[in-house]
Amino acid sequence: MNVTQKLIKEHLIEGEMTPGKEIGIKIDQALLQDATGTLVQLELEAMKLDRAKTEVAVQYVDHNLLQTDFKNADDHLFLHSAAQKFGLWFSRPGNGVSHPLHMERFGKPGKTLVGSDSHTCAAGSLGMLAIGTGGLDVAAAIAGQPYFVKMPKVMGVKVTGKLPDWVSAKDVILEMLRRHDVKGGVGKIIEYYGDGLKQLSAMDRHVIANMGAELGATTTVFPSDEETKRFLKSQEREDDWRELLADDDCEYDLHDEIVLDELIPLIALPTSPGNVVPVSEVAGKEISQVVIGSSANPGLRDFWIAGAIVKGKSAHTDVSFDINPTSRQIIQNMIDNKTFANLITAGARFHQSGCMGCIGMGQAPASGTISLRTMPRNFPDRSGTKDDQVHLCSPETAAASALTGKITDPRDLEELYDMEYPKWVAPELHIINTDMLVAPPQDTSNIELKKGPNIASIPHIHDLQDKYTVPVQLKMGDNISTDEILKAGAEVLPFRSNLPEISKYSYTVIDPTFYDRAMKTKDQYGGHIVVAGENYAQGSSREHAALAPKYLGQVAVLAKSYARIAWQNMVNFGILPLEFEDNDDYEKIEQGDMVQFKNLRKDVENRNTITVIVKKDSGDIEIPTKHSMSERQIRVLLKGGIINDFKDRLSA
Amino acid sequence: MNVTQKLIKEHLIEGEMTPGKEIGIKIDQALLQDATGTLVQLELEAMKLDRAKTEVAVQYVDHNLLQTDFKNADDHLFLHSAAQKFGLWFSRPGNGVSHPLHMERFGKPGKTLVGSDSHTCAAGSLGMLAIGTGGLDVAAAIAGQPYFVKMPKVMGVKVTGKLPDWVSAKDVILEMLRRHDVKGGVGKIIEYYGDGLKQLSAMDRHVIANMGAELGATTTVFPSDEETKRFLKSQEREDDWRELLADDDCEYDLHDEIVLDELIPLIALPTSPGNVVPVSEVAGKEISQVVIGSSANPGLRDFWIAGAIVKGKSAHTDVSFDINPTSRQIIQNMIDNKTFANLITAGARFHQSGCMGCIGMGQAPASGTISLRTMPRNFPDRSGTKDDQVHLCSPETAAASALTGKITDPRDLEELYDMEYPKWVAPELHIINTDMLVAPPQDTSNIELKKGPNIASIPHIHDLQDKYTVPVQLKMGDNISTDEILKAGAEVLPFRSNLPEISKYSYTVIDPTFYDRAMKTKDQYGGHIVVAGENYAQGSSREHAALAPKYLGQVAVLAKSYARIAWQNMVNFGILPLEFEDNDDYEKIEQGDMVQFKNLRKDVENRNTITVIVKKDSGDIEIPTKHSMSERQIRVLLKGGIINDFKDRLSA
Repeated sequence: MNVTQKLIKEHLIEGEMTPGKEIGIKIDQALLQDATGTLVQLELEAMKLDRAKTEVAVQYVDHNLLQTDFKNADDHLFLHSAAQKFGLWFSRPGNGVSHPLHMERFGKPGKTLVGSDSHTCAAGSLGMLAIGTGGLDVAAAIAGQPYFVKMPKVMGVKVTGKLPDWVSAKDVILEMLRRHDVKGGVGKIIEYYGDGLKQLSAMDRHVIANMGAELGATTTVFPSDEETKRFLKSQEREDDWRELLADDDCEYDLHDEIVLDELIPLIALPTSPGNVVPVSEVAGKEISQVVIGSSANPGLRDFWIAGAIVKGKSAHTDVSFDINPTSRQIIQNMIDNKTFANLITAGARFHQSGCMGCIGMGQAPASGTISLRTMPRNFPDRSGTKDDQVHLCSPETAAASALTGKITDPRDLEELYDMEYPKWVAPELHIINTDMLVAPPQDTSNIELKKGPNIASIPHIHDLQDKYTVPVQLKMGDNISTDEILKAGAEVLPFRSNLPEISKYSYTVIDPTFYDRAMKTKDQYGGHIVVAGENYAQGSSREHAALAPKYLGQVAVLAKSYARIAWQNMVNFGILPLEFEDNDDYEKIEQGDMVQFKNLRKDVENRNTITVIVKKDSGDIEIPTKHSMSERQIRVLLKGGIINDFKDRLSA
Repeated sequence: MNVTQKLIKEHLIEGEMTPGKEIGIKIDQALLQDATGTLVQLELEAMKLDRAKTEVAVQYVDHNLLQTDFKNADDHLFLHSAAQKFGLWFSRPGNGVSHPLHMERFGKPGKTLVGSDSHTCAAGSLGMLAIGTGGLDVAAAIAGQPYFVKMPKVMGVKVTGKLPDWVSAKDVILEMLRRHDVKGGVGKIIEYYGDGLKQLSAMDRHVIANMGAELGATTTVFPSDEETKRFLKSQEREDDWRELLADDDCEYDLHDEIVLDELIPLIALPTSPGNVVPVSEVAGKEISQVVIGSSANPGLRDFWIAGAIVKGKSAHTDVSFDINPTSRQIIQNMIDNKTFANLITAGARFHQSGCMGCIGMGQAPASGTISLRTMPRNFPDRSGTKDDQVHLCSPETAAASALTGKITDPRDLEELYDMEYPKWVAPELHIINTDMLVAPPQDTSNIELKKGPNIASIPHIHDLQDKYTVPVQLKMGDNISTDEILKAGAEVLPFRSNLPEISKYSYTVIDPTFYDRAMKTKDQYGGHIVVAGENYAQGSSREHAALAPKYLGQVAVLAKSYARIAWQNMVNFGILPLEFEDNDDYEKIEQGDMVQFKNLRKDVENRNTITVIVKKDSGDIEIPTKHSMSERQIRVLLKGGIINDFKDRLSA
């Protein structure tokens, strides 16, 4: 067996390991961040959870640290109290970014992890099966439920050789993105193996596993070997190591190979991580900003190499040289090995430890100017600047460009500055400080949730009714994204813990009148449906894009097809995802039509054709529709979602 | 003569040094920050300035560093280009807070300084005459014009004795605020003298001079003595020192005395810096945040003492322990003397060097919870949280409270932690780094202003007309503040470089329809007037509160009385500040009335009674009014403001 198969087999609870079939796996660890975590904690409250059932569950705070008003700070107090109440670890604001922190303190070879953040897959660097998913799935895992996912195909990537000077792990994953683009990993787990892995430290593997998310992969898996052991030892956690290697005669569903010696410095151009070219192709373009850090280049080495490159020099006078340190622990180590002083002396702006500009929370670049970042994503506007020109690259390329003020192939530093490639030697032991990690208390009975005025409990969702007569509130086209259903950004993000408030932003990108209209029809008819074309709700996994419409009374969506995660989220929150039996019927139903359902519960349960009766002036039209939910999902949906389902089983 | 008199006499160009009389003084240095500086640079552009005429002028960037979208970053590029074009130094974003940076690099005993920031007075610590004022006054000074101010009274404060353990400079100024409250310094310059000054380093004096602004003082002045020399020497600027002492037999208009030995740790309660009590009176209250830094406690000692107190311990688990470092140079020195490591290890969250939460740009506290800050101001909502509970105190009190999680008298640390008061020894030489200070180029002829889409040049302001028939757009009561005329905060601040945009916020706090109505009457009648009661436009000095209404067509304000700075700003931007001859007439004029002026120019020029003819259905009413502008101000107003006046004199 390969490592992926071993990990899944050890945790398999339901189903069989055939690609495409739903499997249920036992979850050992769970990870939350603050932007999605406030809702998860409210879900745990709604589930009346006593105490987390996973071996380890951690609430991190890394997304919303700007605190431009009371909302962020109130969320921090709430998350702290909720972590205590439900028996989670709490990583305090300022402690750092979830993924590298989790790897350093909690990650264990052979374990499974789900996280309410798409880069949770970074923990694959330690030989874990780590999957990013919607918050309610994580809440269910914390409550002791299996995690359900379709068994992916496993792509084995053989790594051989040795990285050349000035080329590092970021260039490995950029090479993968150059080959496979942002959809090449969909439905797959990427597993790396081969002799070349000896050249890649555990934190290098983190860089590669993290941005596996950008390939669209379900996750990325590395073996747990001597490098893994060395890493855990350096974090004083050698006892947590176990070996986990692929069998010599194992097989993979798909194959690829990376010869490290052949790699060159690469860069992803705006506005997709898959838009990769050699740095030399775009060298010479003027830049206004360089950002080093984020979960995609979080290791001490990544900062050290930047410090070593700029040491004794100054960042170019037209460049904002921003350092986004990963964690407080990394800062301590950076002080200790002089990296911090090297960077500050060269003109760096240091920021708090967190996600910062990677999720558009600060350090947006100037209009139309080029920003070079070691971050994982450069989707349009994600930086906060509408016409941004974000390029993604290695710390080597970023530091070289900070010096020259232009996109620069770091190999050119040899000539430009008579510089040899600085050779990193990993410390045997890191300075370790766990003071900002608050352990869950033994006795949680007296703990109250601290809810500021912006934090609202999740209202009860009613179970599915047999009969509805409701309007078509909105008719949309193909490829509607979750950003259009519920947008992100500095304006909306602070309302992630307040469903009544955030629901006001539902579909505003498509139709600013949606909220007012939906509130009226909720009163008048008890809800609504919406109609869409192909690939409804693609993009980000945010479950608010299901929960907010549900709050406004959404009974069902009728679409030609759905994006996978959003489709799961709808079921989890009790929205019926209907598909046309004949896509031509899409033309027969219009915004404003009234539609009628009869015998809905029985038709859903028995997988009957579900007839949507469209009331037209000229007489009723019947549109036959279907759903493709599993038995488990049918049970969940009929009850009005996972929270109700969980409560029922708890009281049973 | 006292030091103040010597400074003024050396720089006197117009008027005589009689308290209450307008004097014009030569300005040697000018200081801008970004929140006010973008407008000043646009004013310099409108003035068609060739090159700064002051000995030194510096554009700092410290207020808007969050960069949640393109606007901040675009402002930075614009300010950089403008500094280059007009011959100013440019302190790049991240370099630090203007006041301590200016003191370290440019401040010189015996010089005059104006700055578009109310805490400019901090430079009085070096024996300078340093005054915070509206941006257009600073623009005029940069263009070589004298600065006009009413000659203040000088209050001599004799300082004797020695500070007790656990008591520091912040407690000196809090004691002054306890005695004199926030209006006690109005119309006065506070000059400190006496043997006790030997105990106060130049940076201690900065703490005291900075918060002289909170007393309402025109400025604060210290002598330049051996301590001043020691400071400049530590910054490698010994040559810039000159002695400047009060004559032994000098006199002061007013007197006070501070015996340092008698001071105890003090704290300003919400929501005024004048609301001062002993720390022991409020000790024991739970806190949620501690912030150390800002222009009010910017020195290396202030961070060092906090680091020495928390060394080897951890901040309380319920406290966000935020460090607001003053400058990149201070960070380097903090790394060097282990302060940085001490603070980080104890759980500190480090932020970029800038003003941060002091002007509500980040790190707002949680709702209704207590935040202890070493900052200068705790006005309601200033932190960004509506029901904030900001307390102001020394770094000693802040650090002690961070450890216990409660407001704590630092003297109690002796018993609580068996701690001796850590003794600070100032380094003879600081680590100095000027890489982020960009010098003005010799040749500015090819420099173009870089204006992003949010940066708009100032439109031409027409000169005053003889005749107007315009509506009363708004009638207000007493004590209307500039915050009500044009609010601050994270929403509005980024529009400070865009007059058409920021003008949309004019008077929104009082009447959200103002902008739309004013734009209509501007089209229809060519403008409007507003009516107010006593003390119109009190509070912050922001000149946008004059310029934005002017942009909307404001011809005149008719009020019972005016706050001083705003009254100056109105004249500077061509708004006629009329006063009722008989305050009872306030009742005769209503919002919506049309008013008529005839012979306005001649009446203003000749100080005639200015008749406001109010058109009523029942017939016209005549309201007699007056103004109290100086000859210089009359000239400026008739031309439509200082910019036009300057251009006229430039072409003459």
